Amino acid sequence: MKVVIIGSGAGGLTVASNIRKYSDKAEITVITRETQVAYSQCAIPYVIGGEIESFDEIVMHTPEYYGEHGINIITDSEVYEIVSSAKFVRYRPNNLKKTNEKDLDDVVNYDYLVIATGGSPFIPPVEGTYLKGVFKVRTIEDGAKIKKWAEQTKKAVVVGAGAIGLELGYGLKQLGIEVSVTEMLPQILPRSLDPDMALKVQDYLESLGVKIVLEKALNEIIGSEKAEEVVVGNEHIDSDLVILSTGIRPSIKLAKQAGCTIGNMGVSVNERMETSTPCIYSVGDCVEVYDGITGQKTVSPFGTTAVRQGKVAAKNIIGRDAVFRPVLNSVVSKIGELEIGAVGLTETSAGLNGIDVIIGRSKALTKARYYPGCKPIDIKIVCNPEGEILGCQIIAKETVAERVDTMALAIAKGVKCTELTEMEFSYAPPVSMVVDPIVLAAENAIEKMNNRI
Amino acid sequence: MKVVIIGSGAGGLTVASNIRKYSDKAEITVITRETQVAYSQCAIPYVIGGEIESFDEIVMHTPEYYGEHGINIITDSEVYEIVSSAKFVRYRPNNLKKTNEKDLDDVVNYDYLVIATGGSPFIPPVEGTYLKGVFKVRTIEDGAKIKKWAEQTKKAVVVGAGAIGLELGYGLKQLGIEVSVTEMLPQILPRSLDPDMALKVQDYLESLGVKIVLEKALNEIIGSEKAEEVVVGNEHIDSDLVILSTGIRPSIKLAKQAGCTIGNMGVSVNERMETSTPCIYSVGDCVEVYDGITGQKTVSPFGTTAVRQGKVAAKNIIGRDAVFRPVLNSVVSKIGELEIGAVGLTETSAGLNGIDVIIGRSKALTKARYYPGCKPIDIKIVCNPEGEILGCQIIAKETVAERVDTMALAIAKGVKCTELTEMEFSYAPPVSMVVDPIVLAAENAIEKMNNRI
Repeated sequence: MKVVIIGSGAGGLTVASNIRKYSDKAEITVITRETQVAYSQCAIPYVIGGEIESFDEIVMHTPEYYGEHGINIITDSEVYEIVSSAKFVRYRPNNLKKTNEKDLDDVVNYDYLVIATGGSPFIPPVEGTYLKGVFKVRTIEDGAKIKKWAEQTKKAVVVGAGAIGLELGYGLKQLGIEVSVTEMLPQILPRSLDPDMALKVQDYLESLGVKIVLEKALNEIIGSEKAEEVVVGNEHIDSDLVILSTGIRPSIKLAKQAGCTIGNMGVSVNERMETSTPCIYSVGDCVEVYDGITGQKTVSPFGTTAVRQGKVAAKNIIGRDAVFRPVLNSVVSKIGELEIGAVGLTETSAGLNGIDVIIGRSKALTKARYYPGCKPIDIKIVCNPEGEILGCQIIAKETVAERVDTMALAIAKGVKCTELTEMEFSYAPPVSMVVDPIVLAAENAIEKMNNRI
Repeated sequence: MKVVIIGSGAGGLTVASNIRKYSDKAEITVITRETQVAYSQCAIPYVIGGEIESFDEIVMHTPEYYGEHGINIITDSEVYEIVSSAKFVRYRPNNLKKTNEKDLDDVVNYDYLVIATGGSPFIPPVEGTYLKGVFKVRTIEDGAKIKKWAEQTKKAVVVGAGAIGLELGYGLKQLGIEVSVTEMLPQILPRSLDPDMALKVQDYLESLGVKIVLEKALNEIIGSEKAEEVVVGNEHIDSDLVILSTGIRPSIKLAKQAGCTIGNMGVSVNERMETSTPCIYSVGDCVEVYDGITGQKTVSPFGTTAVRQGKVAAKNIIGRDAVFRPVLNSVVSKIGELEIGAVGLTETSAGLNGIDVIIGRSKALTKARYYPGCKPIDIKIVCNPEGEILGCQIIAKETVAERVDTMALAIAKGVKCTELTEMEFSYAPPVSMVVDPIVLAAENAIEKMNNRI
């Protein structure tokens, strides 16, 4: 069995290593435009800010490592055609991209093809984005370029106040750079948090000296040769480093060319991760998925999603059955000391979807009040009028990710607030409160439900 | 409505404050033999060891505080008779305990009575337990006495290697005392952990200089006037401080006298926390509960259980319906830097109950490998041959409690390993691994299941 995988991100490499795990015989080829593979994209802001020492640290394996495990990785190469009727792909080395010498092309046949082309950064269609000192942040090379440029930077602007934008903003501030993070929407972290919770994160960032500029879209980047000034809304901000952290768009070009159905949000796949074209699978940031609560099509551009999808595709390719379920989009970020996590529906997204919800809140502590080092924790849960939990947002300086995981499971299993209050949360003073902050939030929601009746 | 509560532990006071929360009119009286109320028993070892500065810290509220909130607390008093036919109790101050002056007795009527008498430390029936320098550890007064005695102690023995025994052992070691923790069973933490997991905790304690003596029951404490030597099995250990941490027995005397049915493990209650005697409820360490997995009667001597039971009793007393479910006995402890957590069935208890199980393990990290400060984590999951999760044990230097909570919910909801591997765990390099350690353990169990077929 010959499996060809296009793309060496979390999705593509998970397919490769899982097929290898289940099958000694499969011939596995990964073709990637990148030089380095198997690195953590999510870690790039932390290397830039110096929390992680170097980019070398975040590379898990070399292409040679994969070669030793029977996975052939062709780096620095671009697949430019999928011939699905005859089941082969054409690719050529990157450095030949602009030639027309067809005889330099290579061809590789497949029994199964996996399109794991990921996404490419969205570059706002304004003047000046191609000036020196303006960067996107996607690959490890992007990260290295930013880190180098930042060495001679005094003032920086990060455009886009999603998690990556804020992590970058904080990181650059740690390097002693004056930083503004700008956002066209009226709050930071608009995809994950409601405005009230976002404000807590904003306060924290501002207390550290990161400037937050809201409700101002990028209009222009001004500079001769290199970036000198960023214009957002009507505001001019001096800046010799500009990072565009304005989201990514699924890379669907190859899938489209292969005849795969493309949806509004990305490559269309079934729950087995199969595209509409026989023997072609697709995983990762390039595919569209279903939202576990609204049922609508959405994206899930997270490494964890890509890994889970990659495992499903690998199992189906080698003949085991597996399905990928609709997503709740669990997210977590650490900015400075603050952990911010969310899963499922926000109050805002409920409103946009016409879903009636009740909110439960708690302001509590991560440990017993009297135990040294206990930290404040803010929880907001979103549930439907029957008490079923639909979403949760958590902010604290520790143990946020794990609590979000508990709530992800609660949402997936249709757990109601009452059931949550009956649940056994473990307790010891150095690690928890005798009544868990999640229970307090659920009790608050129940109280509001009772008051409604 | 008059509610009388016997006992001021977590259970009794939860009933009191929850009835107050729902009803302005209820007359609430708590009668307790203690002087201080509303303190954290679980925190006592941490005060002894100095992690928490003083016993004052762990007292949440004074009796006067409750008085101001309409809860009358009668301290230092012993209820010695419940007259259930006429619905009143007799009590007298502790300092009159030994008189026969009946006219000094007080009587208080009730519409509802709550027996929250807790448990009393089990004192092994051997010579020398009443010597000076031998302590039980239950009340804040016990804690204060131990802390004072420890000031002039060079060598100590803690009898019983449950969580409290080990927390005390570690705490005394921190005070510069030479400590042995002895256990009659062949492993530490026998109620919560399997031997293989217990060994990891033992290694850690031994690396800190805490001596662990296994498979040796307490035979005698030797001393003229005060403790000088402890004999466990055939081993003599010099010791001028001995702490008996040998479990607690439910205090059922009053319930029995009132005519309530008593089971093998404690006061018998239905899921509404009602005893067999009309208008008498019972909550906390004195009641027996059902195990959520084996269905057998068991005990759940934890503050969290008492709180959950107290809430259920309070709701039923004021006319809202609530039920208390069988327990999974989620536990967590922090010993030094190490957190140890468990929930549900161990492999050992499965064996004792004739339940066929499959084990999944992972040795992973609490954060991305390359993120500074990531810590090793050991997970063992126990599931039935269909893959349904029945139990979990986790050891790491952080985020154990929250992961145990996720697993408690998974067990309660009948989640299978496959479902767990499909679950969305949140990810960011500073707080988690891209594939969660729980997923790795579940995958390991699935692999073993597949190999069985």
